[in-house]
Amino acid sequence: MLFPSLENAARLLSSLPGIGSRSALRIAFHLIRSDSDKSEDLAEALIRLKKEVRFCSLCGGLSDADLCPICRDETRDRSQLCIVEEPGDVYAIEKTGEFKGLYHVLMGAISPLDGIGPGDLRISELESRIASDDRINEVLLATNPTLEGDVTADYIANALTGRNLNITRISHGVPTGAAIEYADRVTLGRSIRQRQDYRRGD
Amino acid sequence: MLFPSLENAARLLSSLPGIGSRSALRIAFHLIRSDSDKSEDLAEALIRLKKEVRFCSLCGGLSDADLCPICRDETRDRSQLCIVEEPGDVYAIEKTGEFKGLYHVLMGAISPLDGIGPGDLRISELESRIASDDRINEVLLATNPTLEGDVTADYIANALTGRNLNITRISHGVPTGAAIEYADRVTLGRSIRQRQDYRRGD
Repeated sequence: MLFPSLENAARLLSSLPGIGSRSALRIAFHLIRSDSDKSEDLAEALIRLKKEVRFCSLCGGLSDADLCPICRDETRDRSQLCIVEEPGDVYAIEKTGEFKGLYHVLMGAISPLDGIGPGDLRISELESRIASDDRINEVLLATNPTLEGDVTADYIANALTGRNLNITRISHGVPTGAAIEYADRVTLGRSIRQRQDYRRGD
Repeated sequence: MLFPSLENAARLLSSLPGIGSRSALRIAFHLIRSDSDKSEDLAEALIRLKKEVRFCSLCGGLSDADLCPICRDETRDRSQLCIVEEPGDVYAIEKTGEFKGLYHVLMGAISPLDGIGPGDLRISELESRIASDDRINEVLLATNPTLEGDVTADYIANALTGRNLNITRISHGVPTGAAIEYADRVTLGRSIRQRQDYRRGD
């Protein structure tokens, strides 16, 4: 290509998830065509994002400091721990107002087809967190109601067997195959209120 | 959302072509998870792209200055003008080494379904360019062999009728290396209607 800065921008854009080399060029042409402000605003937003948002060292959720606002909040119920796949799931559950405990974000789900095993998730962190904090007496498995999410819930339930814990799973009020982050608030809230003992649930 | 800088980055990312609000969040999480370098490199690349690459004021192709390297090149044949839809098409044609004239980039094609009419393209610029430069004696229509590209070629050919110009169109047919058995019916039909004398075609 004749223009190194175009080639460079397209290469970096195509390294982002979901952007192929064709869409990367389309985005680059779009930015060349737009006001200078657009590229500058985007560039600044990406730098601020990286500076101001990180992952909580305890729960793995989004944070503005070493510990996130939820883990810092002394009024939260420290006996309940909700396990989710992604940081975005925390906000979906917070919006229901049905859960007052703490979270643990796995950063994904077990998916052999994508090469993601238990060792790629924050499961060992979960085990040591539970081992070192005897206030926790309920683990609510809120992984997605998909094959991967169900397998992950099962794996964690097995890994925690033998500890003095109630292991629960959000109820199947959420339609199978959907993503927790985008479930409507009422359905998701009900599935938390009606959570079942993990072994008794279907 | 609890983090304004995440919300802002996701909003700006989702304003880019081909990126919805879900992919925007996925990209943002990916950047939070990556090295700081990645966000900084990308931010810098976007700013450099916008600073160093612009559109040629004459042909509308990519340029590093007011006039692009092709329009500046005094050795190019100024009697031939090749009309293409997008800046990327110029590079595809340059790679063939078969065209030594100048280009005119339309920035799209007529597409009523997408709300793109002739007035949204660089067609009036084409007409005044031809009116003011009597060295041009051939206009080669190299819009895509699609419904939109054919309609656009047709529109331009009509708009230029009455001027002393050869108006040509790139030939359509079976691509080199393809199997006739698997060519689509429209392409194959066209290649039969537009058949060439055997000794004349290369």
